[in-house]
Amino acid sequence: MTNSARFPSAVYAARLARAAELSAAAGLDGLLITPGPDLQYLLGSRAESFERLTCLVVPADGSGARIVVPKMELAALGGSATADLGLEVLDWVDGDDPYLLAGSVLPPKPATAVTDAMPALHLLPLASTFGTTPVLATAVVRQLRMIKDADEIEALRRAGAAIDRVHARMSEWLVAGRTEAEVAADIEAAIVAEGHTEAEFVIVGSGPNGADPHHEVSDRRLEAGDVVVIDIGGPVEPGYNSDSTRTYSIGDPGDDASTRIAVLARAQAAAIAAVRPGVTAEAVDAAARNVLAEAGLADAFIHRTGHGIGLSVHEDPYIVAGNTLVLEPGMAFSIEPGIYFKGKWGARIEDIVVVTADGCESMNNQPHGLTSVD
Amino acid sequence: MTNSARFPSAVYAARLARAAELSAAAGLDGLLITPGPDLQYLLGSRAESFERLTCLVVPADGSGARIVVPKMELAALGGSATADLGLEVLDWVDGDDPYLLAGSVLPPKPATAVTDAMPALHLLPLASTFGTTPVLATAVVRQLRMIKDADEIEALRRAGAAIDRVHARMSEWLVAGRTEAEVAADIEAAIVAEGHTEAEFVIVGSGPNGADPHHEVSDRRLEAGDVVVIDIGGPVEPGYNSDSTRTYSIGDPGDDASTRIAVLARAQAAAIAAVRPGVTAEAVDAAARNVLAEAGLADAFIHRTGHGIGLSVHEDPYIVAGNTLVLEPGMAFSIEPGIYFKGKWGARIEDIVVVTADGCESMNNQPHGLTSVD
Repeated sequence: MTNSARFPSAVYAARLARAAELSAAAGLDGLLITPGPDLQYLLGSRAESFERLTCLVVPADGSGARIVVPKMELAALGGSATADLGLEVLDWVDGDDPYLLAGSVLPPKPATAVTDAMPALHLLPLASTFGTTPVLATAVVRQLRMIKDADEIEALRRAGAAIDRVHARMSEWLVAGRTEAEVAADIEAAIVAEGHTEAEFVIVGSGPNGADPHHEVSDRRLEAGDVVVIDIGGPVEPGYNSDSTRTYSIGDPGDDASTRIAVLARAQAAAIAAVRPGVTAEAVDAAARNVLAEAGLADAFIHRTGHGIGLSVHEDPYIVAGNTLVLEPGMAFSIEPGIYFKGKWGARIEDIVVVTADGCESMNNQPHGLTSVD
Repeated sequence: MTNSARFPSAVYAARLARAAELSAAAGLDGLLITPGPDLQYLLGSRAESFERLTCLVVPADGSGARIVVPKMELAALGGSATADLGLEVLDWVDGDDPYLLAGSVLPPKPATAVTDAMPALHLLPLASTFGTTPVLATAVVRQLRMIKDADEIEALRRAGAAIDRVHARMSEWLVAGRTEAEVAADIEAAIVAEGHTEAEFVIVGSGPNGADPHHEVSDRRLEAGDVVVIDIGGPVEPGYNSDSTRTYSIGDPGDDASTRIAVLARAQAAAIAAVRPGVTAEAVDAAARNVLAEAGLADAFIHRTGHGIGLSVHEDPYIVAGNTLVLEPGMAFSIEPGIYFKGKWGARIEDIVVVTADGCESMNNQPHGLTSVD
């Protein structure tokens, strides 16, 4: 990884300092962060080591972050902010006990927090070494990661514009007689061509396949009259994701589908209109759900309204019933209600929005209603 | 995933039954297996869900495996053996507590074991629900996964032959003036062309870059006289990996390098000759290390001799000092001693071998010594 694939090192210095402060405020003695999006967020490192322990240790006492890393994987830190920040590197070789090394940084208190992504392979030995079962660092890390700064929002804007350009070209590919897989291959190439580093996911749900929210692609051929769900996205440098869904039809899908999808578009717009600082996540979910319920479509909406997005495609905050989190400026998440009719068809409309001082800004700006291609 | 991407369902039925037996023998009440290679091994499932809990529960009492899965991800089980084996599926929707659901299958005993890959995000809530800190299932699962059956060995043979065909073509790409990255792109394409589903890793370590065992590729241009380490591999269906290293030179690397690499080849051959049932993993490591030590090269060999391989590129058994595991027929692992001279050059020679009744069979059969290309 080159430096262009991360923010300037001062960004990570500030994040690490804030992580220590928030840990202290939460009564934790520190954070243990193995490879994954939290490590990328805090250090600009995309290390992927699994079997040998790589672990950023962030003491809550402000004594400075240190990183435990296998000596033979030192090179993997090269692209990160480790050197610029002068972090102490504790390297180890096969035969050493890396858990004792991590333990040497943090005093053995009963309040060590670990990243969501830490695998059991390392978590359980660390718990044993520290003499306590760690807690999840989710709450601390999400306070950091949930509130995007200006550079992160700019990256999300670039990602949103790139995926919008792909949706804008959809009529080139959605043609009766072609298979979902053939369409998906064209979309994947366009996702990369429009500026993503890769196509992270491509859902082409045509006809009855659209009724399964997690259907990906199949060899089913598009037919005249099909409703088709296209849910696509991927990362742009330095790692921030796009995610946008639009629903298309191959010619005329019939009055019933057109009517219901118009209700869905109103539900999606109602949820977006509900987004502003001070509102709860569950209130945004309810805003979409209520519109669908009033039209008798409550049972057709079988998932939550949205998920946070950033370095991960799915992260906090989740826009779901029961989540009383209060929205703040800088939070970024999807608004994606859907309706699903098993064996028949499905529809979903999804934008990524970022909370502003008095509402939200949408990263996605393609037309929201059913788009007919033929 | 289609059925061609896994073994017949009876294979998974036998593995699940054996997993329950071994769990009982180990005094465990059962196994909790989230997505990753253990789930692929036990059920033929390549589910990748992270944030929502998918978890195979294998009770040690033989009452039958069940699987907890988010309702909206049910389709991801389609390629697995779940339906053929008639496994009970416990599905859940957002708002349910999937940990209670998993807990309903296993009695709350203090000996629940979890897969290495289970993320803290799920492990800690499960521990809380079960009222106990789980232990690692590593010991049980590795008893299963370490001993490859005939179908698995055949898959490793196919993988080995495919990567051998790539090494056989290396002189097409290793040309002075080309960058490591250019060479790597050609190798990646060839890895796929020769039958792998993807190029999992490609190391092109030329000149001083070869002195770092984990160097991947760079924009350094190959020069006459360079020693070049090529360490490559990837999976073939249904998911078994190749991994083979050969060392090349661009023309004549000089007498010193030639002499030392000849010693390395003898060390690698000595380790292979040491492999047979009843020998310990550490004895195989020592066999390679002793040859290098006798030639004054002990300090140049800075990593272990090998790692197991199968569905994962790195898995048990590890061929390393301190590992007293006794080898058994069906174990598959790499034999890959290397020598590294910082700032100058490095060399490594690697085969995958499978333990037989009286020795081992090598999956890789390209010439082992330094191969000069020009």
